[in-house]
Amino acid sequence: MQKRVTGPEIERLIQLLARVPGLGPRSARRAALHLIKKKDQLMGPLALAMNEAHDKVQICSTCGNADTVDPCTVCTDPARDQSVIIVVEDVADLWALERAAAMNAGYHVLGGTLSPLDGVGPDDLSIAGLVDRVARGGVREILIAVNATVEGQTTAHYITEQLSGFDLKVTRLAHGVPVGGELDYLDEGTLAAAIRARTAF
Amino acid sequence: MQKRVTGPEIERLIQLLARVPGLGPRSARRAALHLIKKKDQLMGPLALAMNEAHDKVQICSTCGNADTVDPCTVCTDPARDQSVIIVVEDVADLWALERAAAMNAGYHVLGGTLSPLDGVGPDDLSIAGLVDRVARGGVREILIAVNATVEGQTTAHYITEQLSGFDLKVTRLAHGVPVGGELDYLDEGTLAAAIRARTAF
Repeated sequence: MQKRVTGPEIERLIQLLARVPGLGPRSARRAALHLIKKKDQLMGPLALAMNEAHDKVQICSTCGNADTVDPCTVCTDPARDQSVIIVVEDVADLWALERAAAMNAGYHVLGGTLSPLDGVGPDDLSIAGLVDRVARGGVREILIAVNATVEGQTTAHYITEQLSGFDLKVTRLAHGVPVGGELDYLDEGTLAAAIRARTAF
Repeated sequence: MQKRVTGPEIERLIQLLARVPGLGPRSARRAALHLIKKKDQLMGPLALAMNEAHDKVQICSTCGNADTVDPCTVCTDPARDQSVIIVVEDVADLWALERAAAMNAGYHVLGGTLSPLDGVGPDDLSIAGLVDRVARGGVREILIAVNATVEGQTTAHYITEQLSGFDLKVTRLAHGVPVGGELDYLDEGTLAAAIRARTAF
């Protein structure tokens, strides 16, 4: 039987850190020891930042982004063209697409994908909210940027149907070879898609 | 240029999480989003645990372990045989050896290894503290459990010299094949050590 080697407060810190994605039980211990060593430079500020985020974070009632204001930073940004809405599964996808900085548009976070097996139906996603936004007018393009999975594509088709009555362009992300990718390692579906969508040099 | 997509409090949380070992900038964002989703189940308790640990953690003045009491849980454990002291480089090593639960002894954390190139001399480690503990009497064995690196072994030799005047046994960890290890992947030094230290079946 393993014996206690440190105080219950530190044990509890390790247990909680182990539940953070990216950290397991072993790296949680390593992280806890690092935090202890950097008590005032890192652990204190991090505790404060978590407390602040905990108190202030809210989900934008318009687009579903995680922010400390509602409507969120993206929805209220005057420099964005809100007539184009990029539909994503998750807040992480919104942030990832923004890092690409390829489009200066609005967003709509679905909160997942349709998945009958897991009991996720249209009412569990913010699809009605998206249709509402479109119905209010001023939207000319919906870019459905869901994952290229079966669930993602099913969800994309469902959304397209829901939006079929409106006069707007519904687009999706291109399939193709990832930048920096090696053909040899790509699956046939991706290669076939890249060939079909080939462009002039 | 990348635009802000969320509030400064959340950005700050991500920046601080990225400085935790085991998390990089990308996994820090993922961790932050998970914490936001599990606001009350994980982020709140974790902030609290960090605050508590920050306020209470201290380094044991006897052995150097990180704990919330001084002397620490290990030093005050009446079930431990404190006449044997296991000398380790770091608190992480103390915790790792305890997980093995192979020895019910006291510990002494050096706080690093001798490394003239990095300007780490004997006075930067708690070697004098170890000699003091031995001089106070009651110690019959010192197990030097430092890493099997050049710096570790140099430190081990230095400690052995410092303890040469006392009547006690100074031991070190055995070299050999790691449990579950495959011979084919092991270096020659380890294999040679395992052969020299072979034991009867």
